[in-house]
Amino acid sequence: MSTFSAIAARLGEQAIELPSWAFGNSGTRFKVFMQKGVPRDPFEKIADAAQVHKFTGLAPTIALHIPWDKVDDYGALRRHAEEHGIALGTINSNTFQDDDYKLGSVTHSDERIRQKAIDHHFACIDIMHATGSRDLKIWLADGTNYPGQDDMRARQDRLADSLRKIYDRLAGQQRLVLEYKFFEPAFYHTDVPDWGTAYAQVMALGDRAVVCLDTGHHAPGTNIEFIVATLLRLGKLGSFDFNSRFYADDDLIVGAADPFQLFRILFEVIRGGGYGRQSQVAFMLDQCHNIEDKIPGQIRSVLNVQEMTARALLVDRVALEAAQREGNVLRANEIFMDAFYTDVRRDLSEWRESRGLPAKPLAAYAASGYAERIVRDRAIGKQAGWGA
Amino acid sequence: MSTFSAIAARLGEQAIELPSWAFGNSGTRFKVFMQKGVPRDPFEKIADAAQVHKFTGLAPTIALHIPWDKVDDYGALRRHAEEHGIALGTINSNTFQDDDYKLGSVTHSDERIRQKAIDHHFACIDIMHATGSRDLKIWLADGTNYPGQDDMRARQDRLADSLRKIYDRLAGQQRLVLEYKFFEPAFYHTDVPDWGTAYAQVMALGDRAVVCLDTGHHAPGTNIEFIVATLLRLGKLGSFDFNSRFYADDDLIVGAADPFQLFRILFEVIRGGGYGRQSQVAFMLDQCHNIEDKIPGQIRSVLNVQEMTARALLVDRVALEAAQREGNVLRANEIFMDAFYTDVRRDLSEWRESRGLPAKPLAAYAASGYAERIVRDRAIGKQAGWGA
Amino acid sequence: MSTFSAIAARLGEQAIELPSWAFGNSGTRFKVFMQKGVPRDPFEKIADAAQVHKFTGLAPTIALHIPWDKVDDYGALRRHAEEHGIALGTINSNTFQDDDYKLGSVTHSDERIRQKAIDHHFACIDIMHATGSRDLKIWLADGTNYPGQDDMRARQDRLADSLRKIYDRLAGQQRLVLEYKFFEPAFYHTDVPDWGTAYAQVMALGDRAVVCLDTGHHAPGTNIEFIVATLLRLGKLGSFDFNSRFYADDDLIVGAADPFQLFRILFEVIRGGGYGRQSQVAFMLDQCHNIEDKIPGQIRSVLNVQEMTARALLVDRVALEAAQREGNVLRANEIFMDAFYTDVRRDLSEWRESRGLPAKPLAAYAASGYAERIVRDRAIGKQAGWGA
Amino acid sequence: MSTFSAIAARLGEQAIELPSWAFGNSGTRFKVFMQKGVPRDPFEKIADAAQVHKFTGLAPTIALHIPWDKVDDYGALRRHAEEHGIALGTINSNTFQDDDYKLGSVTHSDERIRQKAIDHHFACIDIMHATGSRDLKIWLADGTNYPGQDDMRARQDRLADSLRKIYDRLAGQQRLVLEYKFFEPAFYHTDVPDWGTAYAQVMALGDRAVVCLDTGHHAPGTNIEFIVATLLRLGKLGSFDFNSRFYADDDLIVGAADPFQLFRILFEVIRGGGYGRQSQVAFMLDQCHNIEDKIPGQIRSVLNVQEMTARALLVDRVALEAAQREGNVLRANEIFMDAFYTDVRRDLSEWRESRGLPAKPLAAYAASGYAERIVRDRAIGKQAGWGA
Repeated sequence: MSTFSAIAARLGEQAIELPSWAFGNSGTRFKVFMQKGVPRDPFEKIADAAQVHKFTGLAPTIALHIPWDKVDDYGALRRHAEEHGIALGTINSNTFQDDDYKLGSVTHSDERIRQKAIDHHFACIDIMHATGSRDLKIWLADGTNYPGQDDMRARQDRLADSLRKIYDRLAGQQRLVLEYKFFEPAFYHTDVPDWGTAYAQVMALGDRAVVCLDTGHHAPGTNIEFIVATLLRLGKLGSFDFNSRFYADDDLIVGAADPFQLFRILFEVIRGGGYGRQSQVAFMLDQCHNIEDKIPGQIRSVLNVQEMTARALLVDRVALEAAQREGNVLRANEIFMDAFYTDVRRDLSEWRESRGLPAKPLAAYAASGYAERIVRDRAIGKQAGWGA
Repeated sequence: MSTFSAIAARLGEQAIELPSWAFGNSGTRFKVFMQKGVPRDPFEKIADAAQVHKFTGLAPTIALHIPWDKVDDYGALRRHAEEHGIALGTINSNTFQDDDYKLGSVTHSDERIRQKAIDHHFACIDIMHATGSRDLKIWLADGTNYPGQDDMRARQDRLADSLRKIYDRLAGQQRLVLEYKFFEPAFYHTDVPDWGTAYAQVMALGDRAVVCLDTGHHAPGTNIEFIVATLLRLGKLGSFDFNSRFYADDDLIVGAADPFQLFRILFEVIRGGGYGRQSQVAFMLDQCHNIEDKIPGQIRSVLNVQEMTARALLVDRVALEAAQREGNVLRANEIFMDAFYTDVRRDLSEWRESRGLPAKPLAAYAASGYAERIVRDRAIGKQAGWGA
Repeated sequence: MSTFSAIAARLGEQAIELPSWAFGNSGTRFKVFMQKGVPRDPFEKIADAAQVHKFTGLAPTIALHIPWDKVDDYGALRRHAEEHGIALGTINSNTFQDDDYKLGSVTHSDERIRQKAIDHHFACIDIMHATGSRDLKIWLADGTNYPGQDDMRARQDRLADSLRKIYDRLAGQQRLVLEYKFFEPAFYHTDVPDWGTAYAQVMALGDRAVVCLDTGHHAPGTNIEFIVATLLRLGKLGSFDFNSRFYADDDLIVGAADPFQLFRILFEVIRGGGYGRQSQVAFMLDQCHNIEDKIPGQIRSVLNVQEMTARALLVDRVALEAAQREGNVLRANEIFMDAFYTDVRRDLSEWRESRGLPAKPLAAYAASGYAERIVRDRAIGKQAGWGA
Repeated sequence: MSTFSAIAARLGEQAIELPSWAFGNSGTRFKVFMQKGVPRDPFEKIADAAQVHKFTGLAPTIALHIPWDKVDDYGALRRHAEEHGIALGTINSNTFQDDDYKLGSVTHSDERIRQKAIDHHFACIDIMHATGSRDLKIWLADGTNYPGQDDMRARQDRLADSLRKIYDRLAGQQRLVLEYKFFEPAFYHTDVPDWGTAYAQVMALGDRAVVCLDTGHHAPGTNIEFIVATLLRLGKLGSFDFNSRFYADDDLIVGAADPFQLFRILFEVIRGGGYGRQSQVAFMLDQCHNIEDKIPGQIRSVLNVQEMTARALLVDRVALEAAQREGNVLRANEIFMDAFYTDVRRDLSEWRESRGLPAKPLAAYAASGYAERIVRDRAIGKQAGWGA
């Protein structure tokens, strides 16, 4: 197995984007529980995200969600982020919270509604120019609830047509990142339900159209690391939305439900060239802290990704390939598991300290008094949340 | 196969309880789409439910949800229902929409919160006295999101203790009906996840504690009709929450996703003595009409149950048992399918007319002008919905 | 809704290929139950398959499986089929029953074994020339059981390379049809687990490489009709392996587990141009009759496909599209369900009689004495089965 | 967190029973791959099982499967085991490999076949007297493939009746252990599909009837540790069949697919009093080594259980309970994960050495020459396997 010192440099290449919406209130269809100190606007979300980066060094950017993070002056927002030591990242569009979109957005049979959804993406691209964002991430709630409700194939054609218009509006290095999802909020069919559909759609668009893999958006039992390997092989893995799940799109803290799956995913990312500075694959979190504290929840999340990345980097790939070539099933598996079972936490603490970061980020955050401060400072006003 | 005339009398025994919350706005965690004409209070919900009964003759009662349907005078509500030709039915408790219940209600480690949840059930029982309801239905959102978050076994003990207190408060013929659910809103463990847990808990309580089977609350692939048969055999099937699903707890119109499953369920209900006037098994709907019209959605639902009940009644059980005894797999299956594939709709239309009901309930409702009237009459005020 | 007479002509276009292995013994890993009268060689399988066509008019071809159906003289086999009124169809390769293939065949890291697997496909192509078959269907058992066991991505490259060699050997109108499967017999990863992988692989090959969709080869909850629509849209749906399942790849009689799903699939086939004489989409069965009689099981199966095709053809697509355009969810669904709930069996009986076929194929077969004859005639010798 | 030294004594209490059938050839319905050196009779299986115990100290007993392990003289078999340093354990009945059982065994509608199956269990009990076994483990393949094929409820009654007869035949401390399984080989319904059914059946029998939990026998997503906790609470957890799975009943090496799940299960076992000398819960493996070496596969398996047991014992339960009481979700989860992420392998090596066992059991076995010896010695004769 590789030693920790051999992988230390590579760990420095890690960057995980935080979702602005992780800091606002979220919940299930049954209830959104309110937490004290939650941000009231995008500026406060950025301040919170910056805390995660301050204590971990892992989260240099924050993704925005439009219209949740709409502001009058994106230049000011950008400077605000920079003053807090982070940058603005991916722009996420939202075509699922307007009554017009009840039966679809870019796939809607009504041209007016389709155009409205396309225009929203144009507005997002305008924002990207102001924020300096590279990626326009498109997750669609489009789908149907009942067989026969709409023509699934015609919707694919309309989807292709709408995406084409959006894609053509991109400039320079900007990318269109299409996310797929197995189900929810649509309960019969989803217009982009699987990686195959996303892949076929982005293939038709061009080089700067890629796929976003959200780890919670698959059918039960799906081998996600296989999809990672395949999309990397096809040159179409654009980004990750990390989270974890036991059942459906539970949006739990990444690594919480199945740490070994996270390890396998990160191994394939590294093996396939998706990790590090030269890679175009964006790492992002997309999860909800419905019942746990939000900033610590994000700190826990990026640490989980880092710890598992370290383990995946530790795999002795030379020995592994030898065992694989020999067809030694048990030996190959053992080499793989050796890295997973290695406890990297002490080494990571030292690594952090060597870079001027706290050995124990969660404890350091707790000791900083920030949590108490925001509870006090944000006592009045409307808290941000989904739909805020 | 039996003839339709042979089963006509039995069809007259059918009664399906409607959920008051099916008439208010509902949605997913992403969005609640508003519909025009939606009720603004429990009285209007009852008026809408009465429409379903008026056009189908199938829905003589309405279930209430506390506190959503809290009123000052339940006697008045009861009379209001009776004036509209229906009666008040099951009382559903709600311990999932108060901030205190973030980490649990009747299973919470904090005695104060447990007692608050128990007290809520006591209040529900008081309402039952006023409404004349037989059943107190308890669905719990209790569970955890993360391994280690709480002690699952201690929660079972606390659950047993809380249920005991609630059960002991019941009087006369009142029943405690415990519903289980595989997951959601809890994403790691649910305190009553399966029929086995519900069964073990109600067995410990006594004769008037029974299980509610919601058809959307199972793991993928679960053979629900087997559970129906088993609970009937054990004497513990108390009621149904009907709906349908492709993925999780999608809460679609009953019969919409898998009509054949509904047929199999109803066949086991009938075979096991769970159908008809002498049975204590309550038929209820529990579904959301997020994107479709609500009153027609309920009409469609009760008709689906009726049509499938007719098919299930048509099964030639004598021939079926003979084929089963012979081990004739194909023949037994064919006899079973014969009933399923029989188109009973014309016969049901005639049956309806013979009883003074419209042949085509959906068309008759559409022609009645009720939909237009409520849109007009309820233009102002706050619409009811989950949490309203 | 369309009338039956309006669709009668289109029903005449239906042709469903039977798998030769459906007539031999099959089972689970726990037990293969023997049946009397089972064929002892490919000639007898053809004779049995011809019975299905004789009584239904629906099954004019039989698929062969190599090496299970290896014979010395394929010309003789072809003539034997023709004398029985059917033709030879798809050739299925088999690279999963040789000890060499324990860790893979066309994806194996050992070049010798890969070449052996490729050579087997070359031999299959040679047979296709003799049998006049159009399609070479490739289902691979390739995959791994343990994380780390092999390099999933390198296996994709080797798969692509092997398929390229096989594809280049095809001549004239011959096609390579690549089948995907979610899992089994591999239990960690499958080399072609989903339609996306199959699609990406056949896209790289060329026009005459297409995808085979086996209805039992998906993750739980997968919307199969969406995949049908999508593959038809992309021009890459080559064929179907029909069967049904409640859990995994149960290989039950098509339509037995979820008749409504079969209806939805067939609707998308028709809507997408995959049905009828002008279509290149091949309909095939691939199922096991482990406990039921084999020839009647196949008759039941093709009748199920026919009955559901009739229902799908009956959908009033003009009215459906109008309701869809209006966004009338309930109405669109109702139009769709109207066709599904229509009992077409009597009309189909008359249709059959009008074409010189028995009104009731199963009864006619039972009355024919064929079953008794083969039990008597095939009393000695080794029965054919998987691996025979 | 606890220190390793604090748990060392408790590790000494671990005993994991091996299945005799793990040493014979096994496979999928597609192919059984043969391995060299595989046992040819029960005596050789015992010799192989003894190797696992010799190098790990963890596997002092071997379970037998009747009729696979039928011998003329069970006294001789028992002495053979003792001479090899192990003992005979659970007796597993088999009513799934006789043609009579095609449609069921103890649930069959034919009284003759039911009695045959009951008699087989009587014969197993006779063997238990000779072997000194405590447990009769009953896993039934009984079920149906098609809706309508048989009467599911009548089968429950027949099951109860048959189990009653078998249970009444037990003597002294003998136990009846009923195993449940979600599906396979039956594909529509299974007569004991879930823990609830097994629980209801054994409750009706008496104190010495308990449930066996096979970790691969659940629906996708099932929270198995919850079932462990619940069965322990109800006093009805009799034994475990350990293995792991990604999809269905894959029967992979325990801990291979989801190590964290194994950790959670073992934590609940310990928390609920199911671990250690005073406990009546039997730990058993039930898995197949289809493609990997069999003896090393078993060594790997018992080590996996041991390593994860050590981690589960390390959980700081006092701190955990404190965090749980405070409702500190993140802290409670962190305490739980701390133990899981601790690398116990070096400590376990030392622990082993301190007890006269090899530090590295797999390497020690490989160096022992046993594998080469059995390949040489068992070159001729029929290998044992399922059905042998």
